[in-house]
Amino acid sequence: MVCSAKSLVKALLIREKYSRLAYHRFPRTTSQYLCSMQDEKWKVEDEVYPDFHSPPEENEDPYNLDDAPDNLDYVIKIKGGIPFVYDNKEMMELNEPRSLPYPDLETYTLDLSHVLALIADGPTKTYCHRRLNFLESKFSLHEMLNEMSEFKELKSNPHRDFYNVRKVDTHIHAAACMNQKHLLRFIKHTYQTEPDRIVAEKKGKKMTLKQVFESLHMDPYDLTVDSLDVHAGRQTFHRFDKFNSKYNPVGASELRDLYLKTENYIGGEYFARMVKEVARELEESKYQYTEPRLSIYGRSPDEWLNLAKWFIKHKVYSPNMRWIIQVPRIYDIFRSKNILPSFGKMLENIFVPLFEATINPKDHKELHLFLKYVTGFDSVDDESKHSGHMFSDKSLNPDLWTSEKNPPYSYYLYYMYVNIMLLNNLRRERGMCTFLFRPHCGEAGSITHLVSAFLTADNISHGLLLKKSPVLQYLYYLAQIPIAMSPLSNNSLFLEYSKNPLREFLHKGLHVSLSTDDPMQFHYTKEALMEEYAIAAQVWKLSTCDLCEIARNSVLQSGLSDKEKQKFLGVNYCKEGPEGNDIRKTNVAQIRMAFRYETLCNELSFLSDAMRTEEISTLSK
Amino acid sequence: MVCSAKSLVKALLIREKYSRLAYHRFPRTTSQYLCSMQDEKWKVEDEVYPDFHSPPEENEDPYNLDDAPDNLDYVIKIKGGIPFVYDNKEMMELNEPRSLPYPDLETYTLDLSHVLALIADGPTKTYCHRRLNFLESKFSLHEMLNEMSEFKELKSNPHRDFYNVRKVDTHIHAAACMNQKHLLRFIKHTYQTEPDRIVAEKKGKKMTLKQVFESLHMDPYDLTVDSLDVHAGRQTFHRFDKFNSKYNPVGASELRDLYLKTENYIGGEYFARMVKEVARELEESKYQYTEPRLSIYGRSPDEWLNLAKWFIKHKVYSPNMRWIIQVPRIYDIFRSKNILPSFGKMLENIFVPLFEATINPKDHKELHLFLKYVTGFDSVDDESKHSGHMFSDKSLNPDLWTSEKNPPYSYYLYYMYVNIMLLNNLRRERGMCTFLFRPHCGEAGSITHLVSAFLTADNISHGLLLKKSPVLQYLYYLAQIPIAMSPLSNNSLFLEYSKNPLREFLHKGLHVSLSTDDPMQFHYTKEALMEEYAIAAQVWKLSTCDLCEIARNSVLQSGLSDKEKQKFLGVNYCKEGPEGNDIRKTNVAQIRMAFRYETLCNELSFLSDAMRTEEISTLSK
Repeated sequence: MVCSAKSLVKALLIREKYSRLAYHRFPRTTSQYLCSMQDEKWKVEDEVYPDFHSPPEENEDPYNLDDAPDNLDYVIKIKGGIPFVYDNKEMMELNEPRSLPYPDLETYTLDLSHVLALIADGPTKTYCHRRLNFLESKFSLHEMLNEMSEFKELKSNPHRDFYNVRKVDTHIHAAACMNQKHLLRFIKHTYQTEPDRIVAEKKGKKMTLKQVFESLHMDPYDLTVDSLDVHAGRQTFHRFDKFNSKYNPVGASELRDLYLKTENYIGGEYFARMVKEVARELEESKYQYTEPRLSIYGRSPDEWLNLAKWFIKHKVYSPNMRWIIQVPRIYDIFRSKNILPSFGKMLENIFVPLFEATINPKDHKELHLFLKYVTGFDSVDDESKHSGHMFSDKSLNPDLWTSEKNPPYSYYLYYMYVNIMLLNNLRRERGMCTFLFRPHCGEAGSITHLVSAFLTADNISHGLLLKKSPVLQYLYYLAQIPIAMSPLSNNSLFLEYSKNPLREFLHKGLHVSLSTDDPMQFHYTKEALMEEYAIAAQVWKLSTCDLCEIARNSVLQSGLSDKEKQKFLGVNYCKEGPEGNDIRKTNVAQIRMAFRYETLCNELSFLSDAMRTEEISTLSK
Repeated sequence: MVCSAKSLVKALLIREKYSRLAYHRFPRTTSQYLCSMQDEKWKVEDEVYPDFHSPPEENEDPYNLDDAPDNLDYVIKIKGGIPFVYDNKEMMELNEPRSLPYPDLETYTLDLSHVLALIADGPTKTYCHRRLNFLESKFSLHEMLNEMSEFKELKSNPHRDFYNVRKVDTHIHAAACMNQKHLLRFIKHTYQTEPDRIVAEKKGKKMTLKQVFESLHMDPYDLTVDSLDVHAGRQTFHRFDKFNSKYNPVGASELRDLYLKTENYIGGEYFARMVKEVARELEESKYQYTEPRLSIYGRSPDEWLNLAKWFIKHKVYSPNMRWIIQVPRIYDIFRSKNILPSFGKMLENIFVPLFEATINPKDHKELHLFLKYVTGFDSVDDESKHSGHMFSDKSLNPDLWTSEKNPPYSYYLYYMYVNIMLLNNLRRERGMCTFLFRPHCGEAGSITHLVSAFLTADNISHGLLLKKSPVLQYLYYLAQIPIAMSPLSNNSLFLEYSKNPLREFLHKGLHVSLSTDDPMQFHYTKEALMEEYAIAAQVWKLSTCDLCEIARNSVLQSGLSDKEKQKFLGVNYCKEGPEGNDIRKTNVAQIRMAFRYETLCNELSFLSDAMRTEEISTLSK
């Protein structure tokens, strides 16, 4: 059926539209084919790119608060979950916001339902399934024929090997970025060096570190990784609830507050010190970068300022770290505790401070500075929790969402997307860096999450459930949506290592990277990311070229700046195919790059032909 | 059938006999049951133990050559592969050797054929197969019922966790004990710091390091782990020949000679320096020990002295290393090059220097000293190579073995065993440390290798093929023969990781430890042994108790001295069951220890009953 090919193309065009609006990335090759299918001319000027702040030079102060631009005097107001920006107070009173085109709820649900219908369509499923099978077989053939040539290319590539190509840990939570042994050592160290320091206040009573441990009936000398009990084990499989409680050392939330939070009696000092220790190790290793997630909950508008102050006060900046803000999907918990009146208020708490800091950086110097090192947003929580609500254009708007029920995943994603998108447009106008939306998606739960992310996300973490939908998997392939996978995390939570689809995705040509998720809970060695690569390499017998391709993907996917990417991947990294690869920097064989590029072009032109000639109907029988 | 049980018991008695003769270990529990089955009284005084040299104290000089005992004036002569010791020259001329009972070829082949017949016997196979199934199910049940209790026990065990229990790398080759990145860095470092040093001589021409690299058309700055090409990959699977050539950096045997050999123009200095760097890392890690293998080939009697001198000159001693001598089974290669006239000469070259150093340490001070740090012998080579010869008591004796054919595995093992056994007896007489025979066995090739080792070895490396013989597997269980397993090595050479029987063996209660084999070829991270443990833990979801049990096994299996074992495992480590376990040192739950002990007792008493009551006939139907 022609409609299969047409519908697939339409889905890609929808993603392209959402990506352009939000300054997300869309692959050039796919874009060019889409243009030619619509008989339009592709122009390089039409491409959009996210803006990431280049890290300060060696002699620059990363905490310089003095370069904040002037106040634009715009006014921001979030109504019904949608941010409106006014030129000034008068315009607000006249209710005449600046025009910023955004997909309204109706458009979004319509676009969503197009893709939802597509993934359930029989012939489309058959078509995509066959293409994916073909991709896998094609890679096997490539491997058999060219494995030795690829390795030969790498062997003759001077001075670069898997150890000194750049790797980015594309998905990691800051509160679990140290391994269990590191946390244990740090706790013991603080107890030895500052037992009499006042570190907490409980019911008005100030407590020293010694007293905190006494109240827990614990002597840190005896503490072990077993009694610390932060490591995931067989008990956490399919038990996200148990896993979450693993964030409490020795099962005590007091210790989590003291050691793993940015806001506490000591101003998050311990947490900052540990994060900085992790950063020092990365800087020494030189080739590893990481993108840790810090939480903004949306309970109060002060969270941002506090976080920015924590960052500056403790000098947490590291050239090897770029920050991502994770927003947990736990409105229901705050609502039931009466901390929030509505979902709209939560969105306000999260986004208004960002608009304000963008409009008037002079009066929000700390936040303005901190945002330079933030490159994106993540949406996190247990995806397997089912929401009772069915999302549609009839869904209540966030201001009216006052019940204790949690909104569904798609609802969260839409409102986060719209806010980030409009924020990005405003920041781009001011020449400030923009943010990527990089939600957790497809770890568990409904397959529809992957549809929402297909529209709204620049890239996703996990993506396991693409296994279950050939249509979505094929779309993620054609749109080359980056997926940060964490097979060791999955192994402890949702899917056994041997069943993890990473190898299969990589072979087919999906844009996958490797990440650790939570070294504290999952890893054994000091080098969590290397452990992740080593186990994948051993269990799946990945070749050096495979490993370096994954590492290259991780740099592309990351929020590292254009300057860094040029340095780590080659000056032409934005180009696709072998042209965009500098083997001297990436150690990925050009044979591999050519194979990937030709294969993608082949799929796209096959789709284009199918759309034109209706031949698809015979193929998808 | 009664004969099944009787034959199994007889097999165990045979092993006990060989173990006692060679000062190998035999488990006390099994020994006690065997005694009671024969209505004998077990006495603790009758137990034999190997003697290991205690490491020197902090203030002692590990290279002190002055304490060598006096000359006994004995005379040693190896005839037909068997060493004969004479009280003096006159006695030798009279041909009256000191009497040392040893199993002659006839006895050995008879004992061998008993076990060989047993493993092929149908009813015995059924019986053992059922017992093994039972052991596995029993452990599953134990796990379901007691997993949480075990973990609770560990959590309340102060100051000890998986990270600070002692672990011994029980099987590792010295020439591959550094990882690929380490070797690469070392090569670059030498080139930077001493390019003009003369390091080799080729056809009478002395060559500087620079010239060596020039002759290979190579600039070390450009060298990468890819061009170094020492890592095993998919290409080495079932290709032991390709694997062996991986010992040549950049495929150049010149570099192997220069960097990975003890005998070369620079007196093995580079190799010693790298080994010492590995040792320093272990000493810093504090809890890791290793037992690297150094080669003695038997080409010439000088090898021993050269090795001892290398050890002393470069001060290679480390408290965290204990040495094992590996003898490659490559007589055929030496014979074809006319280096050796007969297999007997090879045995002479290997063992005569040891007897001489034992009889007259004063005149062999270096070797005498070095032997203090040697704890055993290994027999190595590709087991899958088939030998054309069928071993029997009609086989030619080693002096007459002059053909270019390589003797079969069992032949090698018998002659190594007899020499080590007689040497041990002589050394025990002098109060010197004894050696264990710890051959590679059951990695590939014929199942009969495991039968030979069942008689002659204290413990083995690999043991994969026990998978294929229920009778042998059950015998290895009952005799608690330690098996040093290296699943990552197997994964690259003979068996995919997921199919490795380690987990199954561990569950059934076989005495398994984890080892790296060749970090240079197989591992990615800096901590190869931790990588081995981490991957096993992740892929098989091993619990902390499992990991600590493996670590405890590794210490027991090792050649660490009695004093060290008391320190690392508890003063009662020689006792079996929970009594022999000090959880504060091993972090192995007493619940687990009790389970293992009861299970072993249960199997042994079941065997004992079966032998007595003939019930076995109904059970094995």
